[in-house]
Amino acid sequence: MFRFDERLSYRMPAHFGGTEGSGCQSLPYDDVSSIMISYRTDEAKLSQYVPDEFEILEPVVLVNYSKCLGIRWMGGGHYSMLAVMTPARHSRSGVEGAYILVIWENKTAPILGGREETGMPKIYADIPDYHQLDGRFTVHASHEGRAFVELELETQKALTAEELAGMNANGRMNQLGWRYIPNVGRPGAALSHAVLYPADTTYRSGGSGVGRIVWTKASPALNPLQHHIINALTDLPVLEYRQGLFAKSALNLRGDLIREL
Amino acid sequence: MFRFDERLSYRMPAHFGGTEGSGCQSLPYDDVSSIMISYRTDEAKLSQYVPDEFEILEPVVLVNYSKCLGIRWMGGGHYSMLAVMTPARHSRSGVEGAYILVIWENKTAPILGGREETGMPKIYADIPDYHQLDGRFTVHASHEGRAFVELELETQKALTAEELAGMNANGRMNQLGWRYIPNVGRPGAALSHAVLYPADTTYRSGGSGVGRIVWTKASPALNPLQHHIINALTDLPVLEYRQGLFAKSALNLRGDLIREL
Amino acid sequence: MFRFDERLSYRMPAHFGGTEGSGCQSLPYDDVSSIMISYRTDEAKLSQYVPDEFEILEPVVLVNYSKCLGIRWMGGGHYSMLAVMTPARHSRSGVEGAYILVIWENKTAPILGGREETGMPKIYADIPDYHQLDGRFTVHASHEGRAFVELELETQKALTAEELAGMNANGRMNQLGWRYIPNVGRPGAALSHAVLYPADTTYRSGGSGVGRIVWTKASPALNPLQHHIINALTDLPVLEYRQGLFAKSALNLRGDLIREL
Amino acid sequence: MFRFDERLSYRMPAHFGGTEGSGCQSLPYDDVSSIMISYRTDEAKLSQYVPDEFEILEPVVLVNYSKCLGIRWMGGGHYSMLAVMTPARHSRSGVEGAYILVIWENKTAPILGGREETGMPKIYADIPDYHQLDGRFTVHASHEGRAFVELELETQKALTAEELAGMNANGRMNQLGWRYIPNVGRPGAALSHAVLYPADTTYRSGGSGVGRIVWTKASPALNPLQHHIINALTDLPVLEYRQGLFAKSALNLRGDLIREL
Repeated sequence: MFRFDERLSYRMPAHFGGTEGSGCQSLPYDDVSSIMISYRTDEAKLSQYVPDEFEILEPVVLVNYSKCLGIRWMGGGHYSMLAVMTPARHSRSGVEGAYILVIWENKTAPILGGREETGMPKIYADIPDYHQLDGRFTVHASHEGRAFVELELETQKALTAEELAGMNANGRMNQLGWRYIPNVGRPGAALSHAVLYPADTTYRSGGSGVGRIVWTKASPALNPLQHHIINALTDLPVLEYRQGLFAKSALNLRGDLIREL
Repeated sequence: MFRFDERLSYRMPAHFGGTEGSGCQSLPYDDVSSIMISYRTDEAKLSQYVPDEFEILEPVVLVNYSKCLGIRWMGGGHYSMLAVMTPARHSRSGVEGAYILVIWENKTAPILGGREETGMPKIYADIPDYHQLDGRFTVHASHEGRAFVELELETQKALTAEELAGMNANGRMNQLGWRYIPNVGRPGAALSHAVLYPADTTYRSGGSGVGRIVWTKASPALNPLQHHIINALTDLPVLEYRQGLFAKSALNLRGDLIREL
Repeated sequence: MFRFDERLSYRMPAHFGGTEGSGCQSLPYDDVSSIMISYRTDEAKLSQYVPDEFEILEPVVLVNYSKCLGIRWMGGGHYSMLAVMTPARHSRSGVEGAYILVIWENKTAPILGGREETGMPKIYADIPDYHQLDGRFTVHASHEGRAFVELELETQKALTAEELAGMNANGRMNQLGWRYIPNVGRPGAALSHAVLYPADTTYRSGGSGVGRIVWTKASPALNPLQHHIINALTDLPVLEYRQGLFAKSALNLRGDLIREL
Repeated sequence: MFRFDERLSYRMPAHFGGTEGSGCQSLPYDDVSSIMISYRTDEAKLSQYVPDEFEILEPVVLVNYSKCLGIRWMGGGHYSMLAVMTPARHSRSGVEGAYILVIWENKTAPILGGREETGMPKIYADIPDYHQLDGRFTVHASHEGRAFVELELETQKALTAEELAGMNANGRMNQLGWRYIPNVGRPGAALSHAVLYPADTTYRSGGSGVGRIVWTKASPALNPLQHHIINALTDLPVLEYRQGLFAKSALNLRGDLIREL
């Protein structure tokens, strides 16, 4: 019969065997194309969605679409994501970074590992490749044939070598998540805690410009599991656009540095 | 800021709000089409994959493909699954049922809830609708364009009213799973325990016949996350076919009866 | 080298070989689930889209969604379609039937044969399975994550045996299409003519009720090839709903009776 | 009622309106990633599949996978293709180029235009993005969950500026196709003729190396419409590998130069 070995790490189905160590290594993504758009929003509304172990550093929403190729842990494969986050500090530890409100991804495998092993609140969406036409980049995410967010970026100038160097000098982002696993068959949490998951980005090229985001509300009948998330984000007003960026980069998810906070 | 309420149940991202109670209710699936094929296999090989809290009741592998429509918790929506299980008894509690070795599903939402809330070892596969031609039913599951299991059932006679009544008198199946959530950034389990998740089926019509299953090995390079599961199942010999069944039914997942064992 | 044989029928790529005869046979679809909703519209607007070889019999738009399983020519496989048509008479021949304005389908193979061999104006859309909940049936079609038509049917009473018998006595529908193939590299038609393609339906069960359709306009930038079709249909006003039907049936496309008009 | 205008070009459904001129323009694809692998094969076997209006210049099969982004006629959108061709001369006209045996594509819209307007023998396949890992590029195409061709390229050295300049000096490829549209309801061709469709490629970067291709036979039951194509290509022996190339490029399909031969 199958016996668990406490020196190993498993994922469900666990009984087919585990891997040595923590199961978390550094995960390089060789070829990433991103559209990043951020905007200032209403702090009171935003704060409803950030656990009180954190402080919001600035009432800003950053939406980061990334098409990822050359993902080493997927045998050189690929997926796309759309992450929504806000700058925050974990009060007790003092760690600063970006609190992850939600990440949509278009493959299940990274969603499972992300949720269970790293507390990243990943859920599924259809996320096609971006469109590009004369320096204009567009992309959307949809649930069962209904787009709920549309991104549009008009690039105006290429990033200079100085700008890229500056971005890379600050290429570390501390992703802050919250892992929550419920009890079975009764209210309350079996696991509930903050997680730090750093990510290092090396930018290669890109362009900056003016972004625009349109969120569209979802109905409970048509999107029973995600409507409250989409509708919460739709209700965060866009008070002022900040960053608008298209970038090609290499990404390194620092699973080796992950830890509970 | 967001505060957890211990009277509620949450799922990630938790900070957008929880639901009252356990989060687990009875989940009706109104319209299910299934192909069920079972076979006797080598007990020593099979026992490698069943945790030692269980005893194998009979060295039989049951593969259950189901196309599900009219799923109430998905707003009347649909998904398909391919579950692999073996009859087992949970020694300490004495509960008998089917130990779930793995479940492939073609939507992410039921995979997430199934894993985190009920310990069902669900992972993703492309699972198309079944083909039917002159009483012959076929279906397969694939990972990124490579089929790893093919089912084929030649129905020979329709189920009689008596047979259906008999099946429905025994329509309860005790699904036995193992919920495992690893520690963050270090070996070992944060959660690791057996789960009982009953399911009630009401059969409406169907036919019995001769089934056949072909498993095809997967390579680590092309299927880094599932190859060890597929290859373990491929290595379980088909010693003798047992059940071969096509059935239309209604399914009721008894989330209200779920509990840790 | 490859030589064409005029006794055979080919499809591109033709040089891998043809089939004997016309290539058009009777095509049975064993298991079809349909949602049919029709409405009266503005005749002047509708007439813009019906070639002048036809007369409109009644200014009615019929939208027919069908999920098809057990398709013999696809090895027992499946696809879904959403057809839009209007009752019409071919003036010269006197043949009456339904002029097909457009058919969206979610697989390419039937689209190709339908267009090139039968003049059915098929184009691609994502068409999921229908949702069903307490007698309410919904479905939509989308292009790259943006739904352009939503159907909703509230069934109110089951079809009686008499109603089914009556429907089956009139189960033949004369699909009227227009095959058009352009010249290569210059304006004008290489082929342009009307086609008759009968289809026989045997209804097994179903329910009637009240339907509703919502068309949503598409933008040229996001849907360069279909926006003018979708927008034309969106501009046809719904003056009064007529038929609202859910039905299970067997369909027989009478390729053996197909002919140019 | 709708009337055709002979100065316009239409595609089905034609009655929603046409476009001025031939409908064929120059079609730029801004961002193309290709894996190209060629091999010498048996000339007698290969010649079975090339119409006798052509002569084979060299018994070589070239397989060209391309992931295309920034496609202007699709609003900056994307699709992927896998084309199989052989060097040939059109005897009557003396035009030399590559006779297109088949092109698989993963979107329907370019398949329709390609077939009906340009005689390119396009059919559907699932074609995912390529995988890349340490200079090794892999990709496959599949039909309903069953891969029928796998490409693998181990790049060994980057293309030099001189090599790229040389490739670009010869960047024109004369695609040679055969447009065939059958009669309706009777054997024989309504249209059957050769087509020239030039394509210009500007290479930006890449690497050369050693390629390998594995074709896998398809069964008539599981792939009723494509098995004879796949099996014909599987039966062409790989006598010697020639080119093995990964390249980034811009592509310009010269619809403005298309003509019947």
